[in-house]
Amino acid sequence: MDLLKFFKYVDEHQTHYVSLLREAVEIKSVSAWPEARPEIVKMVHWVGDRLKKLGATVEYRDVGEQELPSGQKLALPPVLLGQLGTDPAKRTLCVYGHLDVQPAAREDGWATEPFQLIEKDGQLFGRGATDDKGPVLCWLHAVEALQATGQDIPINIKFVFEGMEESGSEGLDDLLAAEKDKFLAGTDFVCISDNYWLGKKKPCITYGLRGVCYFFIEVQCAKQDLHSGIFGGTVHEAMSDLMYMMNTLVDAEGRILVDGLKEQVAPLTPEERALYKDIDFDPEDYRKDIGTNCCIQKGDKVGGGRGTGARGHWVGLRYLDIGSNRCIQKGDKAETLMARWRHPSLSLHGVHGAFSEDGAKTVIPMKVTGKFSIRIVPNMTPESVEKCVVEYLNKQWKKRASPNEMKAFMFHGGRCWVTDPHHPHYQAGARAIKSVFGVEPDLTREGGSIPVTLTFQEVTGKNVMLLPVGACDDGAHSQNEKINITNYIQGIKMLGSYMNEVSKISE
Amino acid sequence: MDLLKFFKYVDEHQTHYVSLLREAVEIKSVSAWPEARPEIVKMVHWVGDRLKKLGATVEYRDVGEQELPSGQKLALPPVLLGQLGTDPAKRTLCVYGHLDVQPAAREDGWATEPFQLIEKDGQLFGRGATDDKGPVLCWLHAVEALQATGQDIPINIKFVFEGMEESGSEGLDDLLAAEKDKFLAGTDFVCISDNYWLGKKKPCITYGLRGVCYFFIEVQCAKQDLHSGIFGGTVHEAMSDLMYMMNTLVDAEGRILVDGLKEQVAPLTPEERALYKDIDFDPEDYRKDIGTNCCIQKGDKVGGGRGTGARGHWVGLRYLDIGSNRCIQKGDKAETLMARWRHPSLSLHGVHGAFSEDGAKTVIPMKVTGKFSIRIVPNMTPESVEKCVVEYLNKQWKKRASPNEMKAFMFHGGRCWVTDPHHPHYQAGARAIKSVFGVEPDLTREGGSIPVTLTFQEVTGKNVMLLPVGACDDGAHSQNEKINITNYIQGIKMLGSYMNEVSKISE
Repeated sequence: MDLLKFFKYVDEHQTHYVSLLREAVEIKSVSAWPEARPEIVKMVHWVGDRLKKLGATVEYRDVGEQELPSGQKLALPPVLLGQLGTDPAKRTLCVYGHLDVQPAAREDGWATEPFQLIEKDGQLFGRGATDDKGPVLCWLHAVEALQATGQDIPINIKFVFEGMEESGSEGLDDLLAAEKDKFLAGTDFVCISDNYWLGKKKPCITYGLRGVCYFFIEVQCAKQDLHSGIFGGTVHEAMSDLMYMMNTLVDAEGRILVDGLKEQVAPLTPEERALYKDIDFDPEDYRKDIGTNCCIQKGDKVGGGRGTGARGHWVGLRYLDIGSNRCIQKGDKAETLMARWRHPSLSLHGVHGAFSEDGAKTVIPMKVTGKFSIRIVPNMTPESVEKCVVEYLNKQWKKRASPNEMKAFMFHGGRCWVTDPHHPHYQAGARAIKSVFGVEPDLTREGGSIPVTLTFQEVTGKNVMLLPVGACDDGAHSQNEKINITNYIQGIKMLGSYMNEVSKISE
Repeated sequence: MDLLKFFKYVDEHQTHYVSLLREAVEIKSVSAWPEARPEIVKMVHWVGDRLKKLGATVEYRDVGEQELPSGQKLALPPVLLGQLGTDPAKRTLCVYGHLDVQPAAREDGWATEPFQLIEKDGQLFGRGATDDKGPVLCWLHAVEALQATGQDIPINIKFVFEGMEESGSEGLDDLLAAEKDKFLAGTDFVCISDNYWLGKKKPCITYGLRGVCYFFIEVQCAKQDLHSGIFGGTVHEAMSDLMYMMNTLVDAEGRILVDGLKEQVAPLTPEERALYKDIDFDPEDYRKDIGTNCCIQKGDKVGGGRGTGARGHWVGLRYLDIGSNRCIQKGDKAETLMARWRHPSLSLHGVHGAFSEDGAKTVIPMKVTGKFSIRIVPNMTPESVEKCVVEYLNKQWKKRASPNEMKAFMFHGGRCWVTDPHHPHYQAGARAIKSVFGVEPDLTREGGSIPVTLTFQEVTGKNVMLLPVGACDDGAHSQNEKINITNYIQGIKMLGSYMNEVSKISE
């Protein structure tokens, strides 16, 4: 393969690649918004049409219906199965990506319209730019650029692109299991570009992910919202019950209070600890990226040391070994990385059904739903976590002795995943990175969840690799999500070079 | 005055009166929505135009700007000052009403479009139907019907209609104080129709109101929203701090935990207790109106007695003497009314800035604002309550020892009000009610807040009376707000008859 010719072509077509990402971002394929379902379908077909132009065969597979919390049923978007090449002499790579995005709205604090791609200072802002529309397009562009420069695609590729990843990948697991000996048959390796570099400058390859279990706590106190002036003082309010319940989940240091979870966490071995030693990561940079006007001094005690009269916005970072409930030294690289990658964490996301707007409304909400999730790690499973959490919440509710109705349940659960970072497939990925960036990648894990990673490993029985395109500060799930133009363009080169390396793996 | 002729005319013009209310409801004059400000202005002018047609002089008074929580400034809607008649031989009545409404959206659970008036089973559904557009229109219709039946308006009327009542009546107090010796000079009595009957069938006159102090608790942990997978475990989350803070405000029984508030509540005298004895109020009906599928049995202990395996939605009502922190017998009429009218209560309204939609979003919100309010009673003042609450929350925050930034403050505060229910003005009101409904009204207080009531009393030095038009189940501030057609039509008659009675007061 003439990599230099390929690289040159990619560089020369930057404007074209940006304009295609612009088109993709403008499609509001938010899987959490039931009313946006047609947009996801549109996005899936948009990618399918482009794959067809590249010579792939494309199928849109119906994966059934989704039941909304209201009980309403809604058709799931189709999963795209694409096949490019069927040469038995070539290696076959299965590529996964997702075409749906997180919710976004200007009023959430975006500086620009989230569903328009805005180029500024070498960055492309827009919902889905990095999660995961940009990386998906990199695959398409890599194939296109190889073809345009007259080069043979050195591998067969099976594309699996779905539209429900941000809402639990509903329907996908069943489809993949059913396609094990059909569409997925013959797969040699699986590659997923749906995560991020650990930092902003150095590429990495990722061998582990936390899972996520998402919970709802519903409390109802009346058949309709009530005026707090007219009824306040005579109603056992659902909101006060919910605040009580939400406050039982983590302590002031963020330690998870749910009984029986800590015991499920795999012990840390010296071998695993050693893996963290050489990773290029500066906890202080990380802290600064999250917060503004941060005034924690190096050497301050955690949770203390706040100067009298010191105002301005703070960012507090906990550097805790959550598994052992012990405080650790602030700024420790390995401990911070482990807190992100190999310890569970619990986040409180919000409340549905209460007053959530600006201004003041004197309402007693009739029914409120608290939302939180737990990031899970080996050896926790969604089943074991669900059991502990629901039991724990029911126990707390009993203590509360409220006459209201409470229901705590797991909305969805995704498993965690860890594999061997020294597999030949990972070495191929490392060589591809070196050919584009000139450096060896860091071997990392991620705190986020891509539950299908594990499904692909189990269904194909083959090695799965996560090969990120975006940088750590891309703001996936945040306001002002972006991808750097250089990451986007180098990503195309990396994936083309990686196809070449995969074709050479002898196993 | 020929009351029968007037009543007959009103009955014959029901369709016309409903169509005018329809027009008013369609104007989305929500004072909590900054973007709806032009709708409030439109609503104020809509009423002004109608007053002019009735022969009133109308002024629109600029009352300055509002500072939003974001720091943005927004012009307040004008206050309408209208004058009908200046005959020095007549009594002069000052009438207050408000033209803004609470927020409303179909997705909050409305069965119909909130800003369309829908007639069903003798009820008129729509935001503002009862709070307070319907009652304001009753005043206009009463004048119109008296004129149409060839009768002299027996009093002079000064109309004060504002557009910010649901957001703290900003700007109004200053205007009223400034107009004390100008527009308001010569006022003999003040009447406000902005509250509700105690029940569904029997009219009442109201001599007391609770005040309200609305508080915000802001907590910030980062400069932007964060992905809980990538950052969870290393950030001291604002949401968990806020849940802790919100959970320190009331106990499981709804008792206010803020130090120093209970001591401010005026003691209950035997005379006051006696006032509750003959009021027509059934706590069991009240409970049923709030909840569905309620399975509390009479005689059950509060907070207990829940049958094993009993499911379905519960409504728990606390019948507590909050002032003395003692449990009382369930179903006690006087104690239930006192919990609504003469004891303080604290309601948690919601959280701004967190994920509040349907579905799942794995976000760590950067900044969250908890909202709650306290209904205050004699001898509490907004100043005394603000001091206790802010001190208490700052104390709780110190205990929390969080590195995040927290700010607790009072967003607005309105005083409570109580007057003498045996004043000649109240006797005139009672006679007007008897002329329309054939019964003596109950003398009631209200749990809700109409802070300007006290301002009118102080500025004019005259007796203020609350003369409600709507029924207890109208759902002000709720989904499916409505006014019964009979209440609306009888309200017109009542106010016309009341004008007649006011003209006869010799004091």
